[in-house]
Amino acid sequence: MSVRYRIQCPAGSIEARAQALAVEQSIEMPLEAVRDARVRAEVVGEVRSIDALPDAPGQFDVVLALATETVGDEAGQLMNMLFGNCSLQPDVALIDLQLPAATLARWPGPRFGIEGWRAAVGAAGTRRPLSCSALKPQGLPLEALAALAYTFARAGIDVVKDDHGLADQPAAPFAQRVPAVQRAIERANRDKAAHGGALAGHRSLYAPSLSGGPRRLAAQLRIARDEGVGALLACPMIVGVPVFVELLRAEAGVPLLAHPALAGSARIGAPLLLGRLFRLFGADATIFPNWGGRFSYPRADCLAIAERARAPLGAHAPILPVPAGGMSVERVREMLDDYGPDTMLLIGGNLLAAGDAMPARAAEFAARVACAFETHDSRS
Amino acid sequence: MSVRYRIQCPAGSIEARAQALAVEQSIEMPLEAVRDARVRAEVVGEVRSIDALPDAPGQFDVVLALATETVGDEAGQLMNMLFGNCSLQPDVALIDLQLPAATLARWPGPRFGIEGWRAAVGAAGTRRPLSCSALKPQGLPLEALAALAYTFARAGIDVVKDDHGLADQPAAPFAQRVPAVQRAIERANRDKAAHGGALAGHRSLYAPSLSGGPRRLAAQLRIARDEGVGALLACPMIVGVPVFVELLRAEAGVPLLAHPALAGSARIGAPLLLGRLFRLFGADATIFPNWGGRFSYPRADCLAIAERARAPLGAHAPILPVPAGGMSVERVREMLDDYGPDTMLLIGGNLLAAGDAMPARAAEFAARVACAFETHDSRS
Repeated sequence: MSVRYRIQCPAGSIEARAQALAVEQSIEMPLEAVRDARVRAEVVGEVRSIDALPDAPGQFDVVLALATETVGDEAGQLMNMLFGNCSLQPDVALIDLQLPAATLARWPGPRFGIEGWRAAVGAAGTRRPLSCSALKPQGLPLEALAALAYTFARAGIDVVKDDHGLADQPAAPFAQRVPAVQRAIERANRDKAAHGGALAGHRSLYAPSLSGGPRRLAAQLRIARDEGVGALLACPMIVGVPVFVELLRAEAGVPLLAHPALAGSARIGAPLLLGRLFRLFGADATIFPNWGGRFSYPRADCLAIAERARAPLGAHAPILPVPAGGMSVERVREMLDDYGPDTMLLIGGNLLAAGDAMPARAAEFAARVACAFETHDSRS
Repeated sequence: MSVRYRIQCPAGSIEARAQALAVEQSIEMPLEAVRDARVRAEVVGEVRSIDALPDAPGQFDVVLALATETVGDEAGQLMNMLFGNCSLQPDVALIDLQLPAATLARWPGPRFGIEGWRAAVGAAGTRRPLSCSALKPQGLPLEALAALAYTFARAGIDVVKDDHGLADQPAAPFAQRVPAVQRAIERANRDKAAHGGALAGHRSLYAPSLSGGPRRLAAQLRIARDEGVGALLACPMIVGVPVFVELLRAEAGVPLLAHPALAGSARIGAPLLLGRLFRLFGADATIFPNWGGRFSYPRADCLAIAERARAPLGAHAPILPVPAGGMSVERVREMLDDYGPDTMLLIGGNLLAAGDAMPARAAEFAARVACAFETHDSRS
């Protein structure tokens, strides 16, 4: 596999630094002490190219060839060989990864992808973007969270997710929260059908937040399955990417929304981690902080995340990029102009800040998203 | 709980920035949109102090009070509330955490701690440091790894660990590697007993590297238990801290060595993460890159990691700091002068680089460590 790093280094020592990185991310010992001929020929990492960045003196893009046999098909071991030790070296950032076609097929990839989301919300065959909002703040009692979920779903928002801070706290324990919220969502879906009009046939999905170790996660998966929830949310960098692949991707049975908590900002390129790797590991949608909000990802990175989420990747389906983080209803048009229809927009606090006008604000958000690419807005 | 962050920010906006961080790491929505009185009073994070760093203009230490109810007793959720979202904000670093005494007791902490390691290697009742080396490079066939393990153990090295890059690769699959290496270690222990002298009664421990999702890990734990291995190695940031707590700490039954792969260097303070948090999560020893090697941790950070590994922490036992990463036998004395006897020194490549003289070099390393604080060196 081919791995691109960015290294900060004086020009005079970049060749030695790149070689040291190739050793660090493969055999982790002095090359001259390796006696095994096969290891020297097939396992030791190789420097493929070194390019000075034209606009950044002392910065270099270094491409290494690393042996896929060191990784197998295990997500944690892939992270380990890509960035395990060198995460401890502040002069190195991980930028990109190209896997050979045969290796791509070893990763599960998304089970549902973009079309799976559309089918689940009752928009199969369309090419419309999706809307998403979040149940918050944590600390609310479950009745309040369920009431909020009803309002969002009744307003036509496609995916109602738990705030990623909602775990299994005493104020709204998972085992009580999920049934209560799911029933509120189902009631809203029934009410939309009964009411007729543009939202008849629209199905909102609830995506509860999974957290904890394997036993807790398995118990949460059982509850979600028993209650018939339509999607799930998890933070791959917190639960661990091996758990995301082996437990959640394998057993969720519904679309998976990946949240970037703990995914850092500085040292692994966001397009690679949030766009490509989370997709390979099984996410059907990937949340990331859009520019101009509470986070500082540059616009080019945000667009690159979206590109990676949807670009051809072996036989793996494209997934939805989910720009988020302090977005507002006023920015819907601009965001959709940037990201296009294969996108899910996530707005949370901006809806809640509308106070008594929140239901109308949520309906406006849902309608603007759903109808953005129609010539005539069928809801208005 | 009290959490210390370092924020880079113009002085004129630090108060607003600190307040925004308190909101981000608790309720994640505009404060004015929170209507629930209990949430406003008990769940929203609070800024406790803001201190300009005297020697670093534009840098501030900000202490927040965050509600322990948001975290419960779950390691992943603790990481989430400490650094989930703000990991995506490059102006923020996580520096320190103080948990109330009642909360400390919710974490498992180390099962064995420093005295547990000494008892396991046959050094109960002494106060001597421990030695550790690594089986590498990955790619070697199992016979070669087992032969290396025999040599290290026969030389008197206390802990022989897998290189953290050894996972379940075809060259030496876990299910074959662990029995082969464990038997080599046991043979070396028997040979030391039969030979008599200073190493009679010395027991080397093998610490295989665990990796993968919960099913693979459970299978690996079974193999390790069936073979009677004496210790285990894992990377908490790769397998996921919830898995480390719920599966490995709960079920390992032998001392756990935490490896810092993927633990980053820049944005979570190493003393907090590698010293305090890994200990709370159940590590009995914590490996970190010592200064002057292939990594660039400053000396003060390294000493602070060791301090955090051993300082009083509720009822939790102290654990062994394990300085590593390009160390050499020549530095043993200096490292022990710095770290003292409650330490495990890890040297890998420097021993292997000795070629045919490796067995003698390994014995020299083991003896220098074991006898460093004796008046008379009983092995010489």
